[in-house]
Amino acid sequence: MTAGPPARVRINGAEQAPDAAVVSVFDRGFQYGDGVFETAALIDGCVREADAHIDRLCRGARLLGMPPPEREGLQADLTAMGEGVAAGERAVVKVVYTRGSGGRGLQPPATPRPTRVVMRLPWPGHPAAWREQGVRVISCRTRQMSGAALDGRIKSMNQLNHIVARMEWTDPEIAEGLLCDEDGGIVEGTVTNLFAVREGEVVTPDLARSGLPGVTRGRLLEVAASLGIPAQERPLAHDELGTADELFLTNSIVGVWPVRELDGRAVADGRPGPITRRLQAALEAIYAA
Amino acid sequence: MTAGPPARVRINGAEQAPDAAVVSVFDRGFQYGDGVFETAALIDGCVREADAHIDRLCRGARLLGMPPPEREGLQADLTAMGEGVAAGERAVVKVVYTRGSGGRGLQPPATPRPTRVVMRLPWPGHPAAWREQGVRVISCRTRQMSGAALDGRIKSMNQLNHIVARMEWTDPEIAEGLLCDEDGGIVEGTVTNLFAVREGEVVTPDLARSGLPGVTRGRLLEVAASLGIPAQERPLAHDELGTADELFLTNSIVGVWPVRELDGRAVADGRPGPITRRLQAALEAIYAA
Repeated sequence: MTAGPPARVRINGAEQAPDAAVVSVFDRGFQYGDGVFETAALIDGCVREADAHIDRLCRGARLLGMPPPEREGLQADLTAMGEGVAAGERAVVKVVYTRGSGGRGLQPPATPRPTRVVMRLPWPGHPAAWREQGVRVISCRTRQMSGAALDGRIKSMNQLNHIVARMEWTDPEIAEGLLCDEDGGIVEGTVTNLFAVREGEVVTPDLARSGLPGVTRGRLLEVAASLGIPAQERPLAHDELGTADELFLTNSIVGVWPVRELDGRAVADGRPGPITRRLQAALEAIYAA
Repeated sequence: MTAGPPARVRINGAEQAPDAAVVSVFDRGFQYGDGVFETAALIDGCVREADAHIDRLCRGARLLGMPPPEREGLQADLTAMGEGVAAGERAVVKVVYTRGSGGRGLQPPATPRPTRVVMRLPWPGHPAAWREQGVRVISCRTRQMSGAALDGRIKSMNQLNHIVARMEWTDPEIAEGLLCDEDGGIVEGTVTNLFAVREGEVVTPDLARSGLPGVTRGRLLEVAASLGIPAQERPLAHDELGTADELFLTNSIVGVWPVRELDGRAVADGRPGPITRRLQAALEAIYAA
């Protein structure tokens, strides 16, 4: 892990010392998890895919009946996060957007005054080999919440189910855990989206009932199309993973991680497959441009 | 609404001015909803059913792999909330117990240092008629999250699904909304448990797959047993509600609310039924003792 820029926090546009960056205990984000968030890569002082993250944050807010974040203010926060970041330095930017304080119990206030928290956090110290040689992954026993709620389909502050899934392993050699719905359909990893390659075709769960369509997932599908690699979103049964030619994971921080092992068994020959490699290289080329 | 005692907040046992009662933005309660809570009635300076609430908080913490709250400290907080409360005054006490700060992303820290927030809040201003003549209730379109997650079975800080359900109505004459699972089984209200009376028997959803067994629900079942009124926990289809002889709701703040109208149609003759009345009176007698 390269040393990155120091932590930084802005709340509603005002700079805060990270150690003293606080919110009211009455904020509905703390009381109920009533809000949404985004996590993005800060590379060379710029937030990667900033527009896509802002759009998704706005969409989530709208679905929750919250006024959308003030774009100029949020953009100014993101710009501030890039200040003083040297070339080659990396950090994570997290935006939390809550409904603020007020309301009567669960009932939101008629005119919410949201709380916007923007944080600059250390880049995670994943081994470089994970990107290059692939990662080990397990299937979680914890089930994804099904079709019911908005929770699984927006990037909400309600992350307890995924925390419970993440607690299923402590082995630092395991990079990720996959969640299925109650019918055995793959939904997503705890912090990633999953792709399988079968007979030259890329498949990713359609997330029609649950699951969060990641920004990098969306970009990856575009990249596949631009390379002429057939790709489709459809229900993907866990049973199909064992016979896949390749598996890989995506998210906004790690980009593409080839999966070399699932539940202790090698995926194909245990090395990143050719389509994974092509997509990973193409995505990295876009982001390096 | 009678004027109640002023708001009060203690964080990890230290008194805070409510306007300045804050938690770190890095607290996992704020970041992820990683914690549990309890809401209880403070009557004449005492927290009603304090032991049952503390027990449930401890159980929830244990299920989440958190160290349980230090009982003496929590008990001291609850005692403090009762100080200066005059006879006849009422307030709500809410306890929030989070995993504190730390960890790597979703992965909790190996040795969590939880955050305990205890708040004294105003008693809600529900009309007295709701207890006496019954309430109007709707069926929510929002579905309860099913069997999947712990979220629905412990009193977690992830309340977004119930907030979305609560946002389905703004008419102040509607007291509560009911949530069904995806199979049309009644689970619970947004902040209450539901009971039906059919041919002299009391029925409440068994909450085997989802739903929170309330402290007052548990007490009500004991009261029914002590009065010789047959009561059972079993799956309860929404379709059964239309033909029920009586319906009522319970929670720790309101006690028993008869339901006089469901989705715009009177329940039986639109007046609280005899078994509801008996159980309500018996419960209130226990709490008045």
